[in-house]
Amino acid sequence: MTRQDKDPLRVAVFVSGRGSNLQALIDATQKGQSSARLAAVLSNRDGVYALERAQRAGIPARVFLRRDYASRAEQQAAMLAYLRQVGAELMVLAGFDQIVEPSLVRALEGRVINIHPSLLPSFGGGLHGQADALAYGVKVSGCTVHFVTEGVDTGPIIMQAPVPVLEDDTVETLSARILEQEHRILPAAVELYAEGRLRIEGRRVRILPPAGKSD
Amino acid sequence: MTRQDKDPLRVAVFVSGRGSNLQALIDATQKGQSSARLAAVLSNRDGVYALERAQRAGIPARVFLRRDYASRAEQQAAMLAYLRQVGAELMVLAGFDQIVEPSLVRALEGRVINIHPSLLPSFGGGLHGQADALAYGVKVSGCTVHFVTEGVDTGPIIMQAPVPVLEDDTVETLSARILEQEHRILPAAVELYAEGRLRIEGRRVRILPPAGKSD
Repeated sequence: MTRQDKDPLRVAVFVSGRGSNLQALIDATQKGQSSARLAAVLSNRDGVYALERAQRAGIPARVFLRRDYASRAEQQAAMLAYLRQVGAELMVLAGFDQIVEPSLVRALEGRVINIHPSLLPSFGGGLHGQADALAYGVKVSGCTVHFVTEGVDTGPIIMQAPVPVLEDDTVETLSARILEQEHRILPAAVELYAEGRLRIEGRRVRILPPAGKSD
Repeated sequence: MTRQDKDPLRVAVFVSGRGSNLQALIDATQKGQSSARLAAVLSNRDGVYALERAQRAGIPARVFLRRDYASRAEQQAAMLAYLRQVGAELMVLAGFDQIVEPSLVRALEGRVINIHPSLLPSFGGGLHGQADALAYGVKVSGCTVHFVTEGVDTGPIIMQAPVPVLEDDTVETLSARILEQEHRILPAAVELYAEGRLRIEGRRVRILPPAGKSD
């Protein structure tokens, strides 16, 4: 049975900022042919533009401010409770700027994906993949969608897209060029997950052929 | 004054094996429009096919076997003497499988380039860039031409080319796909160097516009 025969996969998106990757997911899932639908948006910041995008798209959104909890662990435990309440089946970190607690990762193992603005394993481990790539002097960078594990930016890789670094790039121009590819591969990876076409084999993620084409 | 007004740059190529990158350099420099010419081939192994390619192209070649010297440093000192004898201005490591001695690097600083079968800084530091990339599970790999410094595979990057990793790749199929790109970017990087269009700025290599186009 393929996902098309079932209800769409319920996806929760974690945001912290303007939410352009959230918008890419909204656009992709509202086309009507998607096997996924956005069931909730979770933000660790108030007043960010991502929340407005969620509201405009009719997606339930909730804010979990660090200062409202005794610890980050308690904050993320509240997020986990909310995820269960809305029945989220896949968690997408889309520019979410908090480290995910090991307890949350363990509770959701294999069901959390992240997008990172570099070709991992290069320039992982931080929030500055684009600046780090420029400073190192690479001529090709890109972006990576990967499963989240307890290590930072080290989980099995689902999709990557290369992006050229140009002579006069600044962090801003390189980031913008990478972001275009993020908007392409993040929805594509979510769709593959929703269609049940991702299989984790050790460190590698195998992408299975579309249902019906494997026979 | 551009290189076109001068004698072609004298390039020495270091090899250890079948020499397919040497062949790419031979093909590129024999076109007649190149600013570089191959002045010598140095091998640390006897009987390899790269030597046959050199002979067929009429390029002087010499073998420096490790067992003929008391140490690797002495072996490479003999190579350095030979480079000076032939007046080599640029040294290209093209599948050369020996670590280059710090003394040799220092003597030739900024004039030695290497090609590595991964998108550095990912999967550097070894002879198995392709296998390491497959084992890690990346979806994009590639190759890198860089200046050689005393660190292994950490020098300033001149050119890179991305290469997709396919679902059923083996080390052999991925290596073959990367090699196609090596054959493209290594001669291109040599040509840029010969035209005086590479400027090292800290960790970054700036590629200058062609002479005549900058005015």
